[in-house]
Amino acid sequence: MKIAIIGYGGVGKALTRLLKMQKDVLAKDSLSIEVDYIVDCGGGIYVPTGIDLDSLIKFTEKEKDITQFPGGSTDITVEQIVSDNLIDLAVIMTPTNKETGQPGLSYAQALLNAGKHVVLSDKGPVMLAYQELKKNASEKGVQLGIGCTTGGALPSVNGGLMDMAGAEITSIEGILNGTTNFILKYMEDNNCEYEQALRIAQECGIAETNPSLDVEGWDTAGKLLILTNVLMGESKTLEDVEVEGITSITTEDIRTAAEENCKYKLVGKTVKSSEGLKMTVRLEKISADQLLYSVEGKNKAVRYCCDTLGELVLIGGASGVIPAAASILRDMVNIHRGYHF
Amino acid sequence: MKIAIIGYGGVGKALTRLLKMQKDVLAKDSLSIEVDYIVDCGGGIYVPTGIDLDSLIKFTEKEKDITQFPGGSTDITVEQIVSDNLIDLAVIMTPTNKETGQPGLSYAQALLNAGKHVVLSDKGPVMLAYQELKKNASEKGVQLGIGCTTGGALPSVNGGLMDMAGAEITSIEGILNGTTNFILKYMEDNNCEYEQALRIAQECGIAETNPSLDVEGWDTAGKLLILTNVLMGESKTLEDVEVEGITSITTEDIRTAAEENCKYKLVGKTVKSSEGLKMTVRLEKISADQLLYSVEGKNKAVRYCCDTLGELVLIGGASGVIPAAASILRDMVNIHRGYHF
Repeated sequence: MKIAIIGYGGVGKALTRLLKMQKDVLAKDSLSIEVDYIVDCGGGIYVPTGIDLDSLIKFTEKEKDITQFPGGSTDITVEQIVSDNLIDLAVIMTPTNKETGQPGLSYAQALLNAGKHVVLSDKGPVMLAYQELKKNASEKGVQLGIGCTTGGALPSVNGGLMDMAGAEITSIEGILNGTTNFILKYMEDNNCEYEQALRIAQECGIAETNPSLDVEGWDTAGKLLILTNVLMGESKTLEDVEVEGITSITTEDIRTAAEENCKYKLVGKTVKSSEGLKMTVRLEKISADQLLYSVEGKNKAVRYCCDTLGELVLIGGASGVIPAAASILRDMVNIHRGYHF
Repeated sequence: MKIAIIGYGGVGKALTRLLKMQKDVLAKDSLSIEVDYIVDCGGGIYVPTGIDLDSLIKFTEKEKDITQFPGGSTDITVEQIVSDNLIDLAVIMTPTNKETGQPGLSYAQALLNAGKHVVLSDKGPVMLAYQELKKNASEKGVQLGIGCTTGGALPSVNGGLMDMAGAEITSIEGILNGTTNFILKYMEDNNCEYEQALRIAQECGIAETNPSLDVEGWDTAGKLLILTNVLMGESKTLEDVEVEGITSITTEDIRTAAEENCKYKLVGKTVKSSEGLKMTVRLEKISADQLLYSVEGKNKAVRYCCDTLGELVLIGGASGVIPAAASILRDMVNIHRGYHF
């Protein structure tokens, strides 16, 4: 399989390391992956016989400007990849823009329309235009993998698509944000207030300096939106989600819940009923006998209910760039295995 | 998709009902399933344009002998299905024989060799000859679905194959037997001894009159064996599993565990290490902060650890003939979607 990597940040670099690490595992699937293009802002690398990953990994440990690597040039663009028509699959890891989806959206459209499989880790295009992208892919007989956009290593989208095949999902519940998991757990364990737990999370590099995306629930809302549109065939937008974050929770709330053998979690939930579809993100009190009770720290989880297969809970999702890259590789392998997403 | 159903017991009948129920869900996958053959011991039904499921469902509510249904005959056999060469896929639901795998094994071989996709719900052939059957399938370019053999609706095999694609599974842990779950939970809740809980389970129809397969751990061992052979590419046999059941557990054991905030579960476990592969089935004490703690009653669970995607826990698996049939249909849909198992 000849591929292009578009967007070459931490996860992109991890993906090149991973392709090397997993060579033997991929060989069991008769899959050999050759990276012919890497494109980042300011240029890229093009080696028609495949970039030497060993040398590249060593090079990027010291150097930042990939155009200085053999095969590198400031002229290499996504347009060239499309017109060269050499690759089978493109991995698009552009930075997320939730308003426009750009530049990932245009790249994905151009590559799908050129008959290339696409694996997207950029949430923007998926949140804004999943049904259109899926239609593009389907018209060209290629696949669109988005398994890494909703919880990384946690196979949330894939689980819903493959493990629920032939059934109709009627509700989705997810604990999908690691930062809020950390803060809530820290408050529980240390009996401290929200502000202190947030500060610790920021000091550990778990929460960002501006943490609003996570703590106000919008990261969870974005992931819930993707799961809902993909698994229920909807075309909802972020405006359809009622979103509450965790910023107003107090130590007292957590203590009272603990006395009832309960814990608070930030839960994204979509429920289909006769009155329509309701999407919410909010703190929910979960009792010890519920399966989502022990989901904390790095773990994430989704729970699907469906018409014929009962409920399915998936828990997992290791953090870090290697698991994130591995969730991209998983989509590539499933596409290689012929799966129609 | 034109199919044959071989073995027509409770789950087979549920499958015909399910095919009718899920017509619209399957249409979203552009999948229309036509049942051309049903074969059971003593004959079957053959309608080259598809058996009318509505009439069949009504007929089998009252009548037992399907050879009396239009298209029915005592002459219809699996050999005929092979020589007619009309179908795309066969669902084999023969009764399990763990010593010989027959008759399911011969049927599966004949149909795979004839270039037909096969979905097997009969554990026997899968436990005894998975690698050979997989080789048969692969040589003929067809698929072998066995997703329903290890926990029914719980997507244990599928999860390991699809959700771990591109990674290497290093350990498997499973709570895979509903009867022992029920007995242990009953002992916990009612502070009673094993014998009493077993009797209640038998009275409720959850445990069989001869419960040894479940309570002595052999059902779990069989499922663990399949998971290990399929997901780790092994060719182990039941003799490679160290098996202990739940028959010697006492109320005192359960009480002591509860005081430590722990519960006993019957766990099947395969661990790969530098010393090789170790497969065990035994009671394990699981603490409240472990994800498998709340898996009880009807629920089943597997936990996979792997090299690059961290851990994945799958919990679910509704009981009953419809979920069992739905897990067979899931394999059929995934085969239709082009997935190479």
